[in-house]
Parts: sequence; structure tokens; C-alpha cells
Amino acid sequence: MMTELEAAQAGKITKAMLQAAEAEGVSPEFIREGVSRGTLVLIKARQSGRVVAVGEGVRTKVNASIGTSSHLCDLELEKRKARLAEAHGADTLMELSAAGDLDRIRREVIESVGLPVGNVPLYQAFCETLREYGDPARLDPEYLFELIERQCADGIAFMAIHCGINLFTLERLRAQGYRYGGLVSKGGALMAQWMVKNGRENPLYEQFDRLLEILKRYDTVLSLGNGMRAGAIHDSLDRAQVAELLINCELAERAREAGCQVMVEGPGHVPLDEIETSVRLAKKMSGGAPHYMLGPLPCDVGASQDHITAAVGAALSAAYGADLICYVTPAEHLGLPNEEDVVAGVRAARLAAHIGDTVKLRGRADGRDRAVSKARRDLNWSEHLRHLLFPEEARRFVEERKSVRGKRCSMCGDLCALDQAQVVFRDFLSEEKR
Amino acid sequence: MMTELEAAQAGKITKAMLQAAEAEGVSPEFIREGVSRGTLVLIKARQSGRVVAVGEGVRTKVNASIGTSSHLCDLELEKRKARLAEAHGADTLMELSAAGDLDRIRREVIESVGLPVGNVPLYQAFCETLREYGDPARLDPEYLFELIERQCADGIAFMAIHCGINLFTLERLRAQGYRYGGLVSKGGALMAQWMVKNGRENPLYEQFDRLLEILKRYDTVLSLGNGMRAGAIHDSLDRAQVAELLINCELAERAREAGCQVMVEGPGHVPLDEIETSVRLAKKMSGGAPHYMLGPLPCDVGASQDHITAAVGAALSAAYGADLICYVTPAEHLGLPNEEDVVAGVRAARLAAHIGDTVKLRGRADGRDRAVSKARRDLNWSEHLRHLLFPEEARRFVEERKSVRGKRCSMCGDLCALDQAQVVFRDFLSEEKR
Repeated sequence: MMTELEAAQAGKITKAMLQAAEAEGVSPEFIREGVSRGTLVLIKARQSGRVVAVGEGVRTKVNASIGTSSHLCDLELEKRKARLAEAHGADTLMELSAAGDLDRIRREVIESVGLPVGNVPLYQAFCETLREYGDPARLDPEYLFELIERQCADGIAFMAIHCGINLFTLERLRAQGYRYGGLVSKGGALMAQWMVKNGRENPLYEQFDRLLEILKRYDTVLSLGNGMRAGAIHDSLDRAQVAELLINCELAERAREAGCQVMVEGPGHVPLDEIETSVRLAKKMSGGAPHYMLGPLPCDVGASQDHITAAVGAALSAAYGADLICYVTPAEHLGLPNEEDVVAGVRAARLAAHIGDTVKLRGRADGRDRAVSKARRDLNWSEHLRHLLFPEEARRFVEERKSVRGKRCSMCGDLCALDQAQVVFRDFLSEEKR
Repeated sequence: MMTELEAAQAGKITKAMLQAAEAEGVSPEFIREGVSRGTLVLIKARQSGRVVAVGEGVRTKVNASIGTSSHLCDLELEKRKARLAEAHGADTLMELSAAGDLDRIRREVIESVGLPVGNVPLYQAFCETLREYGDPARLDPEYLFELIERQCADGIAFMAIHCGINLFTLERLRAQGYRYGGLVSKGGALMAQWMVKNGRENPLYEQFDRLLEILKRYDTVLSLGNGMRAGAIHDSLDRAQVAELLINCELAERAREAGCQVMVEGPGHVPLDEIETSVRLAKKMSGGAPHYMLGPLPCDVGASQDHITAAVGAALSAAYGADLICYVTPAEHLGLPNEEDVVAGVRAARLAAHIGDTVKLRGRADGRDRAVSKARRDLNWSEHLRHLLFPEEARRFVEERKSVRGKRCSMCGDLCALDQAQVVFRDFLSEEKR
């Protein structure tokens, strides 16, 4: 089987490319070219046939993550969260369980949604190693590669794999000597521990070609994970993080050359004025690989409202070129999200992605903003509600609170600005732009 | 009585300046200089003595607006909303009622909070004119000036007044000939109607010196209102809006020269990549007058989640120099906010202001971010929660969901990244930055 990248480079337009082109309102050739250059990846949900295009020139996508932990392990809850994420407009799902029967959870979660499902293979790997030996340093590389293949075979559509946290990267961290926020990547922290305790190179880096061969067999998209990502705005763009990014970008090129679809992950916690640098650096060094952004969070003190913190960072990162936004829920930094948190997280991330797209894609993304504005101007409530990003939510507001009477709402009542303006401007302004 | 501006220019350090300096952690001379230059205003709550500094070099402030409309007129509800806004950290309050006994509402709202209370005099003026004559064009300028003085005498600390929407501005709108979002400012739309129907200049522009004399008598801060503000991202920076801004900036200079404290208001709806231009233009043309930003909203389709839309715009506008952020609640564009909406709006705006301040004020604003990050790294939950922006909310989360056991939370459980990292990095990294 050819990967989408190999097919594109051979000049072929696949079924997945046609499907992506239709969903994005672009030509199949546009998709093929992007995939061929590696600036676009096609993430395919094997269980449903759905294709999600991520990268340059297409709508910014939103990922929602679910999964168990040893403190809260309830497969049915995670499946409900997965379905809620899909219902509220997530484009991809990551199954990040770290407790329970992990093979079963993965298979059931994949079957419960139509979305492409991604994961982080190191979670299961270290989880089962800890369970068996009580020490993550006992992780056997052979078992790790077998596990990755099993996960691909189960239909995992994309994988965040920590290949760039290698001995070079660790040495940069050691030379730096300090980190405000420590290491906040589970996969990164555990792999670092493995390398230090065993005095060995990261097998995912050392045997990168072997990894690529596995992923290519299933056309599973490689997402180069961010094990050194900053978990504090004061750690943003520190040398340890940039060292890993540099290695990841080098690996992205190798993956592409080998015909494996690949994305590069971004942080984390980034101050507002470093988001542009952060995104551009990753895009530039990786040769334009699709960028999967974890927010970012532009401050560290927002816990309980971090879906909003992340929306600020995500809107900006999308505007600068991030292609896939991982949602952050109000539970971030405090515990596992519940169903309500998942909905809040998906909504905030979708809103942020749209805000970014109105800049990144211009006229291709802001048509509904224009439609909403004109409907508001004309006090046309049904048109107004219809074009919103969250029409059900807005409609419920208006209905439950009975906030609209005739054309006017309770915000201004009889002193409605739009209505007052109409008195004069009906003759003064034309209804359509000349 | 001297205004703070006059006192500062005379080299005096007033009680209000001392109070502002202490609250901001800067020297009294720093405050005096800023007030003297007009880059800082001191908004004073007469009923409580509280002083709020707004402008360059101090923390970005948050305004919450409350007020009745003819659809929803409940004074007790508005007072509860006002107190909630104060309790959740708003710095100023705007009392924007447009229905009921407006003198009584104003007086009772002022008495119910310790915050400086602002308003928009044109609301009451047009409201009462409509009630009496059924036509806003019958507004009597003499009554308007008397009303403004009465409101000042009642203790209104700052006033958004629509002086810049004059015949020149209206002509620019006519020449432009189109607006996607129409006019969304109540005061602006009503004053435009008044001018067009009467064929006369805006009395607030024509008799600007008279207005300044009234405001100076009470040291009420003038906030030059944005009657032409864009209510659609596609209208952002259109010529009608920039024309009014230009006039407002000219008037800001005149106010300053007359010894009247003054701010300039910004839009509205602004695409993400025009926020910098929007803020810098207002700051530059006004000679650095404090900038009061209404959000902005970087997209038009977010209704029901527009506190988040506005947080994105507000964080960016604060980073670029906006000094006072008007909150936007989830009810925006749909109806009057209820108590829950007020709390959500204040929280989102405070978070956005802080994100902006970590860029704008650097080390003076981001100390708590560093403290939170270090506490997280060290799995010190009590320190972590203590330094958050919303500690009660986060604590409730942790307690209600029992998400923390020992040092670990339900997010990662036994696979805690920070804990795993500590195993190795206790020796590897130093606890404090060298």
C-alpha cells in the first residue's frame, strides 16, 4: 500500500484527496500538491472512512483528548466524552488513556466515534512497564515497537511519538541547568528517565527508520511529540525546547523523504509575544510540516479558566500558521475533564481556530462573519442565529430567557442602536457594498 | 477644586496619586508624571474614596457594565450584578441603564459598590426624550448639559461621551456609503439621527469647552465615546470609524490642555491582525491618552461564547497598549447578561488583561506565573492554588472532584509527568535559576 504522501508524489489523486478537497472547498490538485510537498497531511479514520486534512491552505482543525488515569478510570465515561467531542465539532480525537485495559479501551473508543483517533504510544508502553516491573526504565524497546504496530493495526490514525528527546536534547537541558516548570510531557519525562537510567539513546530516535516502516504500512501520520515543551511561560523557547524542536524538524524531513506523513508538535506555555516566533520557527525548520499546537497557554495562572487562556494562544497560533489545535479544558492543571469540560474545551478551541482562520484564510473563512453582521444590522434574528458558530447554544439563550421581542432584544430594548440607526441610514447607506 | 491633571501639572502629589502609587507598586512621582502628561488618568470613586489608575505603566484594568433595558428592568438584579462584578475583581463599573427611574438607579448603583462608576449620559438623555416626545430628535441640548452636570454631581466618576460623531464624521460615513454591521453604538446611532433630522452639529462637539467645564468641576474623567465603532470585523478601520477616532484624538488633546482628565475609546469588532494598528493609531494620534478598549471581538460568529472571543482580542489589545478593557459576557449579542454571565465576563476579561500585562509590563506582572510554575514543578498544591488568578474556583474544582490524592492529580494519576521528571532531575537541574 502506498501512503498518501507516496501517492501524491507519484502524481496520483486518491479517494482521500478527493474527499479532503470536497470538505475544504479546494481542488483535488491543491490537496495533492500540499500532500506531495508535505505541507498537508491526510489523517484517515479507518473505522469510518473520514478524512481530515491538516496543514497549509485548509481550515485549522481542532483535536480533543480523552483518556483514563489511575485516579479516574471509567471506559464508559471516556466513550461519552469522545462522542461529545465529536458532536460538538472536534476534527480529531486523541485517546490518551493511562490506566485500565489499554488495548480494549483503544479499540472501543475508536469504534465509538467517526473521527480519526490518535494516541501517544509511550503512555501504554510505560504504563504496562510500570505495572509489570515497577520501574519505567525497564521498558523494552522491542516491546515498544511491537506495541506501536499493534496500535496502528487497531486503526490509530496518527501518533504523537517522542523521537526528538534524544541524548543531544538532554545534554542541552543539563547545560541549561534549570527549568521553572520542570518537564510537563508524560512521554518526555518518562523517556528522559529511561535514557538517563539506562545510559542509552532513545530507541525511537535510534531506530527512527524502523518506526517509519511501521507507520507507513498503515499510513499512520507521525506527529513528532514535544517531550521538552515548556510548561511555564518563563521556559518558552528555552534551549532545551528549541534543541528538541530542531531534532524533530530534522526527523520530519527524514520522514517525508521516506514517504511517511508527518506533523511537528509545538508547545505548551508561550507568552503572547513569542507565539509568532514559536510557530514560524517550527514551520521554517521543518520545511513547512503541518504544525500541531498544544494551545499554547500565554499565561500560567488561569487554571479553572484555561480553556480561555488557551483560546487566546490558539487564535494567535492559528493566525500565524498552526494547523491543528489541541483543545484545553477548564480542568487543565487540576484534574481529568468531565463531560461538561470536554464541551467547553471543544467550543473554545473551535472559536479560536475560526478567529485564526479569518486571518490565515481570509475570504475563504470569514463569509459567515459577514453574514452574521448583515443579519444583525438588519435585525434578522433567524439569519443571525443560523450563521453562528454555536447556533443551538445561542438559540437556547434567546428562547430560555425570552430575550427577543419582535426585532429587538433585551440588551437595548427600545433604545436599540441598530433599529435607531436604520431610521436614518435606510436612505443614507446602501444595503450591499458597491 | 483642581483636577488631578491640573494638580500634577502644578507639580503636586495628591492623596489620590499616593493611593494609586501604592496600589500599583510604583512611585508617587511616576503616577504624577503620567497624569501630568495625560498618559494616565485617576478615576475616583467619590462614594468610597477608591482610586483606579488607568494608563501607561500600570496594570490593565477591567470594566464591567450593568444596566436595565425596557425589556428587563429590575434594579435589585442590577445591584446584585454590580456587587458580583466587584467581588470578582472588576476595577470599574459602568451603569448603562436605559429604562426605569434613571436618577434613582444611578444613585442606588453607585451606593451599592466601592468601584468608580461610569456611565453614558446620552442613554438617559435619549431615553427620557423618547419617553416625553416619542422622537430622539427632540433632545434639547440645554437639558443634556444639565443632565450631565446632575450625573457628575451624583458621583459618576467617568463618562463615555460621544463628541467625535460630528458632521465631518457623518459625511465620511455617507461618502463610504456602506457598512456591513451598521451602527452598533446606541449613543452614536441616536446622536447621528439627531444631527441628520435637525440638520445641526452635535452639541457635545459644538460646545465641547462647556462640557469640559462641567466635567472639570467634579474631576469626572472624560472617555471619548466610539459612536462609529465597527460592529463587524469587515467594518474595522473603515473611514467612518477612523474619522471619528481622529476627531476624538483631537478632542483628547483639547481636553488635556484644558486640564480635564481624558481617555479615548476603541472598537468594537477588529480582526486579529488589525488590533495592533487599531491600538497604536489611537495612542499615537491622541498623544498617548489612556485607551479604553471594548474587547475587541476578533470575529462575529461567537455569540454565546463571546466572553472568549473578547478575551482573545482583549489580551492582544492589552499587550499592544490598551489600558482599560470593557468586559464582554456570554450574553453579548443575545440579551442582557444575568448574574452568572457577569461573573463569566469579569473572569475572562481579567484573564485577558493579565495575559496582556505579562507582555506589556513584563517582570512587574508575571511574578505569579513564575510562582505557579515552580509550585507545579514541585507538586506543591497549596502554593499552586494560592497564586492562581481564580484560586476559589480552582480549589472548588479540586475539592468537589477529589482530583488530588497525595501529590498527584487525576489528570495523569500514577503516570504523573512532573513526578516522573523529578526522579531524574532532582540532581540534574537546580531548584533556582543560577
